[in-house]
Amino acid sequence: MQAALALARRGLGNTWPNPAVGCVIVRDGAVVGRGWTQPGGRPHAETEALRRAGDLARGATAYVTLEPCSHHGRTPPCCNALIGAGVARVIAAMRDPDPRVDGRGFAMLRAAGIVVEEGLLEAEAQAINAGFSRRIRAGRPVVTLKLATTLDGRIATHAGESQWITGPEARREAHAMRARHDAILVGSGTAVADDPDLTCRLPGAAPTRSLRVIADARLRTPPGARVFATARQHPTLLVTVPGHKPAALAPYLEAGAEVATVARGPEGLSLTALLGALAQRGVTRVLAEGGAGIAAALLREGLVDRLAWFHAPGVMGGDGLPAAYRLPVEVLAAMPRFRRVAARPLGPDWLTEFEPREA
Amino acid sequence: MQAALALARRGLGNTWPNPAVGCVIVRDGAVVGRGWTQPGGRPHAETEALRRAGDLARGATAYVTLEPCSHHGRTPPCCNALIGAGVARVIAAMRDPDPRVDGRGFAMLRAAGIVVEEGLLEAEAQAINAGFSRRIRAGRPVVTLKLATTLDGRIATHAGESQWITGPEARREAHAMRARHDAILVGSGTAVADDPDLTCRLPGAAPTRSLRVIADARLRTPPGARVFATARQHPTLLVTVPGHKPAALAPYLEAGAEVATVARGPEGLSLTALLGALAQRGVTRVLAEGGAGIAAALLREGLVDRLAWFHAPGVMGGDGLPAAYRLPVEVLAAMPRFRRVAARPLGPDWLTEFEPREA
Repeated sequence: MQAALALARRGLGNTWPNPAVGCVIVRDGAVVGRGWTQPGGRPHAETEALRRAGDLARGATAYVTLEPCSHHGRTPPCCNALIGAGVARVIAAMRDPDPRVDGRGFAMLRAAGIVVEEGLLEAEAQAINAGFSRRIRAGRPVVTLKLATTLDGRIATHAGESQWITGPEARREAHAMRARHDAILVGSGTAVADDPDLTCRLPGAAPTRSLRVIADARLRTPPGARVFATARQHPTLLVTVPGHKPAALAPYLEAGAEVATVARGPEGLSLTALLGALAQRGVTRVLAEGGAGIAAALLREGLVDRLAWFHAPGVMGGDGLPAAYRLPVEVLAAMPRFRRVAARPLGPDWLTEFEPREA
Repeated sequence: MQAALALARRGLGNTWPNPAVGCVIVRDGAVVGRGWTQPGGRPHAETEALRRAGDLARGATAYVTLEPCSHHGRTPPCCNALIGAGVARVIAAMRDPDPRVDGRGFAMLRAAGIVVEEGLLEAEAQAINAGFSRRIRAGRPVVTLKLATTLDGRIATHAGESQWITGPEARREAHAMRARHDAILVGSGTAVADDPDLTCRLPGAAPTRSLRVIADARLRTPPGARVFATARQHPTLLVTVPGHKPAALAPYLEAGAEVATVARGPEGLSLTALLGALAQRGVTRVLAEGGAGIAAALLREGLVDRLAWFHAPGVMGGDGLPAAYRLPVEVLAAMPRFRRVAARPLGPDWLTEFEPREA
């Protein structure tokens, strides 16, 4: 199952709207087939693994990180494939939260005489599928908030110079993080100040399918910004509030970006509504890269599922731009607190990852 | 020598104005005496070790972390003691930078027929003696800047609530840090806002001799503050600028504190002058605990020799009080940068220690 989980992780950021699944088929103690969800979500992991196993799947055991699907989507159900191949036993890490499956897959396999076991390494599988489960159950993706700051929490000089606070090792990891997410979200402040292209640039890495999302209630980002100029090569979504004149939106559409509107929030647009709109498009995992307005709003609304903080070993002082604007925190007890789940050096910098403390 | 270095470290914060030295006497492969500089700087490590070795010192080898002294201070020179005890060989980690010694100790031992070797584990010894060497050579102590902040570099809420940002494990380590320094420095902002007593409170630890120093150009700290109210139990020094009326200073003196004046600086008093005044009093190691004004001034003037940063896993947002006020940093290339020398978890928090990058 560990091997199947590792295969599943390969698909993260690349399989949405489908979950990233891994499958390993074992017969007489030897691996005869391995598969993982392919880019775009199809073929499924089981189909891939069965294809490779061929006739050797007969009487074998399939380890799969998520309950095999029982419904006809764009492809026939994986349960049919497993039954057809003559698999004797299916060991699944977790049940599929999709109401179209949710135990029906297991039932279908058992009805065909296959031995089914559930729950092996379930916590790991739940972590991999957190975005898919959240989208299915809560109608929103999971959100990783990524910040790169000085020791004193500054993302730029008071004049806006931010390139580069962190070193090349940290920036490479930040690109790898983009690849593991379905969508990359920035606010208009960051889009204007840094003019990022928000793509994943890693030598040797395949192009990713990440959706670039710019939250911009007031249309402050110029249509000529890099992220829109490359909208025909990389999917790009401008999210704003209703009420803008069609002529104001036209340049973004002409550049090749999509435009969506969501309800207003306390400041600018509602991030809860934005995340709901992304989930409807199938997005399961969002990487929020700032700036300070998006960070504050996500923290304020309790929408941060994972915090990835790069600390560079410098001190900017009080006139540097803050990582997060005013939340506000009136009393210390009300401050958003997290628990550390991972920490490691990246050249001169340090990456610490957190989850909400109550989780 | 490793054992002697460990013994030397026991004295840190407690031996000033003298260096913290360790000595191990070995005869026929067995340790026959161990010693370290006692509180207040006397007796010296060699005297202690020889006393314990007794007659067994004859023909033995003495490992000592600093060149034995050759001059008559308040105690006779350690060289005389080593010669008198009949030690055959002295292995010293480093030369004593004090111009009254500076090689004369080694010469005196060699003249008496003792075999002398220098430089074993010298880097470690230099690190332990950094404060002593800096005071002798540059006329100022070494400065550790200690900060405890949220991930976004805030030391308190906008209302000033700071107790507690970090957890008990980090606060215990902060107290242990106080014990390893000769003086604890805070600015008046911290003295007023937190009303700290700046003592080292660790269960089972001996009382320390750390000097409590309050930098307060405008005499903003009330004489009734905790640090002055306890001035008869713990040495306390108020450092201000010249020109205050005697009546304004009297309450601090009456409370039992000492008062010193130093030149004005760009903002408040000159920290360079303050550190010079501390060195004249024999202080070799200063722990600066903030607040944001002291931190900014130390960073601006390049006076931070070691940075000890406690990060608590919370995010305060942009209205929290910053770790350091405006330096200012006009361009990113001019930002004070450090290199990480140690990092470790302390309960939910994380302590990272840095030295200046050019060091």
